This record gives sequence, C-alpha cells and structure tokens, in this order.
Amino acid sequence: MRIITISREFGSGGRELGKRLAETLGIPCYDHEIIDMVANRYGLDKNYVSHVSEKDIRVFYPSTIGHRLMTNSSVLQQSVKIAAAQHEMIRQLALQGDCVIVGRCADVLCRDMHPLNIFVYADRLSKLQRCETRADESEHFSEKEIFRKMKQIDKERAAYRELFTEEKWGKKEFYHLCINTSGKEIKTLIPAVAAYVNIWFGQD
Amino acid sequence: MRIITISREFGSGGRELGKRLAETLGIPCYDHEIIDMVANRYGLDKNYVSHVSEKDIRVFYPSTIGHRLMTNSSVLQQSVKIAAAQHEMIRQLALQGDCVIVGRCADVLCRDMHPLNIFVYADRLSKLQRCETRADESEHFSEKEIFRKMKQIDKERAAYRELFTEEKWGKKEFYHLCINTSGKEIKTLIPAVAAYVNIWFGQD
Repeated sequence: MRIITISREFGSGGRELGKRLAETLGIPCYDHEIIDMVANRYGLDKNYVSHVSEKDIRVFYPSTIGHRLMTNSSVLQQSVKIAAAQHEMIRQLALQGDCVIVGRCADVLCRDMHPLNIFVYADRLSKLQRCETRADESEHFSEKEIFRKMKQIDKERAAYRELFTEEKWGKKEFYHLCINTSGKEIKTLIPAVAAYVNIWFGQD
Repeated sequence: MRIITISREFGSGGRELGKRLAETLGIPCYDHEIIDMVANRYGLDKNYVSHVSEKDIRVFYPSTIGHRLMTNSSVLQQSVKIAAAQHEMIRQLALQGDCVIVGRCADVLCRDMHPLNIFVYADRLSKLQRCETRADESEHFSEKEIFRKMKQIDKERAAYRELFTEEKWGKKEFYHLCINTSGKEIKTLIPAVAAYVNIWFGQD
C-alpha cells in the first residue's frame, strides 16, 4: 500500500505538491476533504471543525482552573472529540488504499502502515511570494501580516503535533524526504517526487 | 552545469550515495580524490591533509594565547593554507563541468554555480549497522565506540562548516533535498535521486 503523507510549512506549496503528486500517481489526495467528512458525520459546522482541526487544543484549556471550569471543559471535550474523530477518519481513509494525506499528523497516525513521509519547506521570501500570488484580489495583507500569519500557523501545527507525539514538527529526522521548494514552481518538481515515490514503494 | 553536493552524517551512506549517483549520471565524483590532489600539489602527506581537511581548524589554535604562540601559530597557518588550497581545488573541479562533490563545504564554496545541495542522514541504529557492515574483519569496535566516533566526526564537520559560513551543518533550510536513508540500501534509492537531479537541472 502506498500512503504518502505531506507535512508542510505554511506557504511552502506543500498542499499543491500533495494534490499534484496524487494526480500524477492516480490516487486520491485527502486534505480539506477530511474536515468535510468529520463535519458531516458529527453534524458539525465545517468552519468550526476546520478551526479546531490543526490548532493546539491546549488553547481551549481554562486559563484559571476551577473558575468557570464547566464551560471550558465542555469546549475542550468537544475539541478532543473532533480531533479523535479526525484521527479515526484519517486511518479509515488510509486503510482504503493508496493515497496522499496532507497535514493532520497523518505520518504519526498511520505509522503502522509504513507511509512515506515528506516534509515540504521553503525560505521566507519564497513563502511570502507564494502567499501573495495565492491571495484573492480582494485580500490585501502587508508583508508583515503575512509573515505573522505564517509564523502563527506553523506554530499551531507544531503544537498540534506535539500534543499527540514526542516528535517535533519539521525536524528532518522524523521524515523520509524533506523538499525545499524555494524559488521553484511546484509543478516542475512533481515528476521528480513521483519518481522518488514509485521507487520507494517499488522496492518494498 | 550540474553540480551536486552531498553533505552527510557519518554512517548515513552519503559517500556511497554520491559515488553511485555520479556513476548513474555518468559524471565524476570527488571525495578523497580532493585530498590526494591537494597533497600532491603541495608535496604534503595525504594523511596529514586528510586529518586537517574536515576538522575544526580551531583545535589548532593555542589554548593560552602568548604562550608558545609561535609553534601553534605555524601549525595553524599550515592548516588554514591547506583548507584554502582545498577550497580552491573544489572550485576548480566544479568549474570543469558536471560532478558530484562529497562533503568539504562544497555547497557553500560553489554557491555561485547554483549546485543542487543534498543532505543525507539516518537514524542512529541504521548508521550503527552501516558502520559495522563497512568495518574490516580485523577492526572491532564496540557499539559505544562507534556512537562516540559518529558523534565526534559529525561535530567536526559541523565546526568546519561553521568556520566558513553562518549556515549550520545539517539544518534542512540550507539544503535543497534531505534524504533519510534509515533502513534502506543506498543502491535502491539511486534511481529516485537520479530522477530528482535530472528533473531539477532539466528545468533550469
């Protein structure tokens, strides 16, 4: 079975890499779809699930224990439940057959299925340019705002990962292949990554 | 021009990867050869050049300044001279045409030639096994000794790099592709890496 997981820095093009790689390999890519599936199954709002899905659940912990604990605790329970549902969903999808899964600690969750785990990263300037190109005409963020968003999202991803595992997000030791996309168009890298994937699994 | 530089953890199989990759691409691989060339040109002993070549030149600095400074200073001068000769040699080789260069900060030294910079790494156990397999029958090192040697050599490589650049050795941000060889035979990865290299340069 070929399970490929993509972890990525915000703005590095990791999501695009996952989508295009899956297309080239002729297998499904799961990304936002996971949120929709969890929302549908639990009758929850997609935005809410999305909000919780890659964020640090600890932010929902009460800041002062014992004070209004009930309210916060129920929010926390809901968040943990959504995370658990998402984890279950990811494993079910992976068990169905070959696929690419973007983000969501899939590398850790599917470890027993021996996935190929890829980390996608880039330098700050390349990520900034990618974010600017990707933004709608109607959106306008300053460079400073984009850099702040990058940092914040990556921090949330790291914290989410560290809730479930001892493995640090983005540390090359925890991935099989780390791809620097700085200055590169993602689509030009795809045949190379696809070749790597095919040979990787071909030998198993 | 296709210049591929290989930086690697001790025991990760980076040298073998470089040799085999060069063979597959039909281009020369420079590794120990650089030491021989420098030794020949300067009429120095190969072992001496090898000893200095990837070590931290700072170890040759006098520990107490002003005390027997002359002796230490001349050793230091010789070491710096050898390092400079090696750097010059690496640039000359790269300028001759497509090649793979293993270690020796070639990625930094040849930056203006736009090399593809690969970092090869593996988990401790895989590196241990590779060291054990590679050792002569006559050599016997305990696991502890091998781990100590691994740590020491990687530390020297890191220090050597940090003498010439602000870039930290082994930090994924400073490489284009980081390859984890844990549990893999190097030769099985070569077609994948060669495909990556060809596509990388094909698009330039």
